[in-house]
Amino acid sequence: MPKYPVTCIIENLPSSVPFVGPEIQERQLGKPFVLRLGANENVFGPSPRAVSAMQETLSEIWMYGDSECHDIRRALASFHDVGFENVVVGEGIDALLGYTCRLFVEPGRKIVTSKGSYPTFNFHVSGNGGELHFVPMKAHHEDIDSVLAKSREVEATLTYFSNPNNPMGSWHNNEEVQKLIDGTPEGGLLVLDEAYIEFAPQNTAPGFDITNPKILRYRTFSKAYAMAGARIGYCIGEAGLIAEIEKVRNHFGVSRVSQAGALASLQDQQYLGQTVNKVEEGREKLGEIAGKYGFLALPSAANFVAIDCRRDENYAKSIVGALAQKAVFIRMPTVNPQSRFIRVSVGTEQDLEQFDIALGEVLAELG
Amino acid sequence: MPKYPVTCIIENLPSSVPFVGPEIQERQLGKPFVLRLGANENVFGPSPRAVSAMQETLSEIWMYGDSECHDIRRALASFHDVGFENVVVGEGIDALLGYTCRLFVEPGRKIVTSKGSYPTFNFHVSGNGGELHFVPMKAHHEDIDSVLAKSREVEATLTYFSNPNNPMGSWHNNEEVQKLIDGTPEGGLLVLDEAYIEFAPQNTAPGFDITNPKILRYRTFSKAYAMAGARIGYCIGEAGLIAEIEKVRNHFGVSRVSQAGALASLQDQQYLGQTVNKVEEGREKLGEIAGKYGFLALPSAANFVAIDCRRDENYAKSIVGALAQKAVFIRMPTVNPQSRFIRVSVGTEQDLEQFDIALGEVLAELG
Repeated sequence: MPKYPVTCIIENLPSSVPFVGPEIQERQLGKPFVLRLGANENVFGPSPRAVSAMQETLSEIWMYGDSECHDIRRALASFHDVGFENVVVGEGIDALLGYTCRLFVEPGRKIVTSKGSYPTFNFHVSGNGGELHFVPMKAHHEDIDSVLAKSREVEATLTYFSNPNNPMGSWHNNEEVQKLIDGTPEGGLLVLDEAYIEFAPQNTAPGFDITNPKILRYRTFSKAYAMAGARIGYCIGEAGLIAEIEKVRNHFGVSRVSQAGALASLQDQQYLGQTVNKVEEGREKLGEIAGKYGFLALPSAANFVAIDCRRDENYAKSIVGALAQKAVFIRMPTVNPQSRFIRVSVGTEQDLEQFDIALGEVLAELG
Repeated sequence: MPKYPVTCIIENLPSSVPFVGPEIQERQLGKPFVLRLGANENVFGPSPRAVSAMQETLSEIWMYGDSECHDIRRALASFHDVGFENVVVGEGIDALLGYTCRLFVEPGRKIVTSKGSYPTFNFHVSGNGGELHFVPMKAHHEDIDSVLAKSREVEATLTYFSNPNNPMGSWHNNEEVQKLIDGTPEGGLLVLDEAYIEFAPQNTAPGFDITNPKILRYRTFSKAYAMAGARIGYCIGEAGLIAEIEKVRNHFGVSRVSQAGALASLQDQQYLGQTVNKVEEGREKLGEIAGKYGFLALPSAANFVAIDCRRDENYAKSIVGALAQKAVFIRMPTVNPQSRFIRVSVGTEQDLEQFDIALGEVLAELG
């Protein structure tokens, strides 16, 4: 008998965390990171208009945020040319994925995702008693054909797909993604995580079809809009599906400050464009750095680059570990064969110069 | 067959929201509220030190918050003289109650609470398929004896108790609460919601016993610390119980800005003391206003006062409705006999003068 009156699902659930945060690693190392290039945060920061809006809203922080997130939700509906009833705003994509799993996952249900893709989704699936079925990536891309085949085979309730993919930065174009959407079997739902979509080429995201009850799409202000610490994201889908999320979400959960910041961010698309350009330059720079050391940067449509270190997982691990000792925070994919890569988030020009130096030193030490 | 592949629990779950937020009401009314005295927010605002800390942290908003909430968690442990492992920080009490229900509620489980007490807890219980059992209040107080009797009778997994109570503001002293803690039956868990505890007399909260695995206690920065819009609260309990929450919580869910604000708030106990004094004065003023119109204010240990309008629910409803038409936002209890009350949050001196005038006009109109 368990020590506490937890549910059957929780009784069988091991303790796990999807990610060990950089601050925890800093405390373990006993020193702060000088370069924070491991969490795919956006070092260029949010629009100055967003910062001003958040500063002003601090004087209202004694008030709960709008439980409907009305203003940002309306702005998002207009921006994406969908209805107000097709958008739900939540405490980041992580929370929205959590609500989605609350709604659709229960013991006996099968969920399909790609091996090595976003672990926080898997955390929520397991936490609700679901059975995860993994398909391998193909050439370091999530593989649409395998994903669909597995979904049909196991009669998956949820099929997760990220475009662009984290941790690889690989992506599919809108026609391929449309094939995935159209191929999602009846009775199942496609969870399309587009956290990094603003960094991707124009033809990456298919248009929104808000009549399709088989797909939910997730976006965030954490990445391109550089507001990771504010916890605000959104989900777009068919109205009835969005209404289901209303049944379980934490209605007063989105910070008042974050709502104001997100609205101002969205309204400053010029700034977003500048950020996206800087990120593109950073990706190129990371490609050059990789090449300089005989490594290979995988083309990326996100704000990070997966770099093939062309040996094995242990080698990649030693690089990540040795960089941490030099106060440089990066991460790496966890699943073979992607685990011979390291994953480096784009930083400022200066950040990347420092990274170049640190990597050179580490590689010289490792031999 | 449902239109979407929702779980059995969700299929049977009606759409509901615990509260219709003031902004939604404003949009329905077509005008903003001039007096916002209905959400038990703290109009006196957070410590200037907290505002400064949050302002400074805005420059770091591109970074995720610390996933352990280490600094504020350590400060809370020290403040309450418990271990780091006895504290978990979350996105407000609402989210922490949600995690608690995820852990302990499943179909077939019985949950006990008081009729008319905090509806968001009930929302989470129903959302996880639990069976709610209600006991009536006694003299407008949650009734410890009835609560315990019902918990024993139904073999409740969770027993909810708020001290002070919302919406009535009534409370029990530490000896009575200790009786409740000690009487919680084996196999069950006491969910002790102390959202308003800082406003209550010194002898209201019993000491923390972090060896007791039958109780979790919930506190927040939304009320006395005036940071409702920042979404940050915490839960204290026996270490193993707190570790269970780790299994399901959203690890990167607490805003970086909110963590910094909460830490600075906690460190400014002098400011907190001033706020508590102002709230006490506000309660007295609300008592005078009530008396002036022949109403009766229930003694309150929170930042709001329940006022007995001495007629029936319809009368209280007309007062709330007529005040809303005058752009004054208050709420009322929903359950008979408490539904003959109105509930008014403490405002500034000027707020309460305006409230007095508006109430006078409304009562004159209603006759």
